[in-house]
Amino acid sequence: MNKNYINENFNKNSLIRAYDQIKPYIHKTPVLTSGQLNRMAGTEVLFKCENFQKTGSFKIRGALNAVLNLPEEKKQKGVVTHSSGNFAQALSLAANYAGINSYIVMPENAPEVKKSAVKCYGGKIYGCIPTLSAREQTAERIRQETGAEFIHPYNDNNVICGQGTAAMELLKDQPELECIIAPVGGGGLISGTVLAAEYFSAGCEVFGGEPFEADDAHRSLEYGKIIRNKKADTVADGLRTNLGSRTFPVISEGVKNIIRVTENDIIETMKLIWERMKIVIEPSGAVAFAAVLKHGELFNGKKTGVIISGGNIDSAKLSSIFQ
Amino acid sequence: MNKNYINENFNKNSLIRAYDQIKPYIHKTPVLTSGQLNRMAGTEVLFKCENFQKTGSFKIRGALNAVLNLPEEKKQKGVVTHSSGNFAQALSLAANYAGINSYIVMPENAPEVKKSAVKCYGGKIYGCIPTLSAREQTAERIRQETGAEFIHPYNDNNVICGQGTAAMELLKDQPELECIIAPVGGGGLISGTVLAAEYFSAGCEVFGGEPFEADDAHRSLEYGKIIRNKKADTVADGLRTNLGSRTFPVISEGVKNIIRVTENDIIETMKLIWERMKIVIEPSGAVAFAAVLKHGELFNGKKTGVIISGGNIDSAKLSSIFQ
Repeated sequence: MNKNYINENFNKNSLIRAYDQIKPYIHKTPVLTSGQLNRMAGTEVLFKCENFQKTGSFKIRGALNAVLNLPEEKKQKGVVTHSSGNFAQALSLAANYAGINSYIVMPENAPEVKKSAVKCYGGKIYGCIPTLSAREQTAERIRQETGAEFIHPYNDNNVICGQGTAAMELLKDQPELECIIAPVGGGGLISGTVLAAEYFSAGCEVFGGEPFEADDAHRSLEYGKIIRNKKADTVADGLRTNLGSRTFPVISEGVKNIIRVTENDIIETMKLIWERMKIVIEPSGAVAFAAVLKHGELFNGKKTGVIISGGNIDSAKLSSIFQ
Repeated sequence: MNKNYINENFNKNSLIRAYDQIKPYIHKTPVLTSGQLNRMAGTEVLFKCENFQKTGSFKIRGALNAVLNLPEEKKQKGVVTHSSGNFAQALSLAANYAGINSYIVMPENAPEVKKSAVKCYGGKIYGCIPTLSAREQTAERIRQETGAEFIHPYNDNNVICGQGTAAMELLKDQPELECIIAPVGGGGLISGTVLAAEYFSAGCEVFGGEPFEADDAHRSLEYGKIIRNKKADTVADGLRTNLGSRTFPVISEGVKNIIRVTENDIIETMKLIWERMKIVIEPSGAVAFAAVLKHGELFNGKKTGVIISGGNIDSAKLSSIFQ
């Protein structure tokens, strides 16, 4: 079958080049297993632990690949983005590594701990009211004032290829994987995962996990075009965003199935992983395994890779989740 | 200096034999590092992560060594202990591996999750009222009724040698460690650590960490005899016990210093490790690193091993700790 998403931006070399460039700066994250969780899932599960990645999530991979691929004259003017979450930290650290400025637009209600992480990595924070249009306008104003390059958190070819290196590492370690599942927010991680499976596996199938409360990807695949979330009231705060024009085509051709899970599924799976594996993961990071547990029949007996996307969770939030 | 604790029970071979026996059943737990935590501690810190050990704590090491060293005729009658915590799970799993019965006396108010873990490992639970004398009497009654061997959670030579294999593994990986620090409850882990440092390092110093609220070890060293806790109202529930007749002599000769930490130190350090290292540890597991942070001057510039003793924490407790 001819795959339309295979083009000069998304070929095998795009991933190899991305990995070669970012490798000196990132952790090769561990792949963990648990006998108990295998039994619950009815299959052998390999967890790719991006919660142990620099900045606490996979996002540093894409941010770095975007920054390192800027032409020199653009680098000198820095980078700008808007994010309340993991991409804010990722882009500020990536810019720090590259020795350039980063301007991060964050809504005023973003948690202090995330703001201080961004500052600690050297990012310059610009506050705005917490609406998407205010974030976009503020970022655009800074772009015009500073000449900084806007880096989109997921709708960017270099970001997508960077995120794909997580699955690429996993597949190099575990070439016999039959399925791989990643959470779906804006689609950067899962698009990259599709590319990695395309080029570094022998037919490994790619699945997505998504909250019912923000199921734009499921509905977009159903309707054959991008359908935005009307609201996105999910505990999985990394997955509230909508698919983009660059991620949708890859996902719609390359993903076998988007499995939706409830808020309760997410929280119970997060607790399960904390209690059994003794690792800290954020709600978004639990969504892929929640999907495996929910639809075991799709994975039964198939060696399955599960991407744990991140581990950034506020202490304050914990008490409400675990009560 | 002649060390009185060196005898036929606690020689180099005791540890080597213990490790050879238990190795097939346990995890070789990872040693993790964190650049951020090194900077906070002012030295290079290597975390021996027994929170990833079978049953979620180091206790399985000692329990297994005790069970595997029983003579055949004793094995047939099973083992009995009383514990509300990690040793209950450890002994039931150890007995399970050895194919023998285990009888575990647990106070009625022990958390359901711990009871169900013990049942899951095949242990038979006997409830009692939550006092030490009721626990001891119930265990003694079962011992008489069944003929089972009583295994003490820490005041037992085989248990001590088994616990010592954690530091032994760490020192084999990191022979150039200059300090090693473990939490102190009944003293099984730290006594074993003293033995491991004696036989598998070139003069690595052993420190202990203890809550102010249960500082029997600190006071026992000060007075030169076992001084029991009057109360032990600490969040570090694994460290509420008192030193025993077999652990005190090893500790009093072999431990350089017992550092006491506050309840706030313990909780803040636990949060710090969760947030920075993305691993789940229990309060007792945070005490050793809390001590390093509190008395950095003792460790400054010295390569330091920190034993994270366990990762078993109830979801219910989390919400109160993290609020």
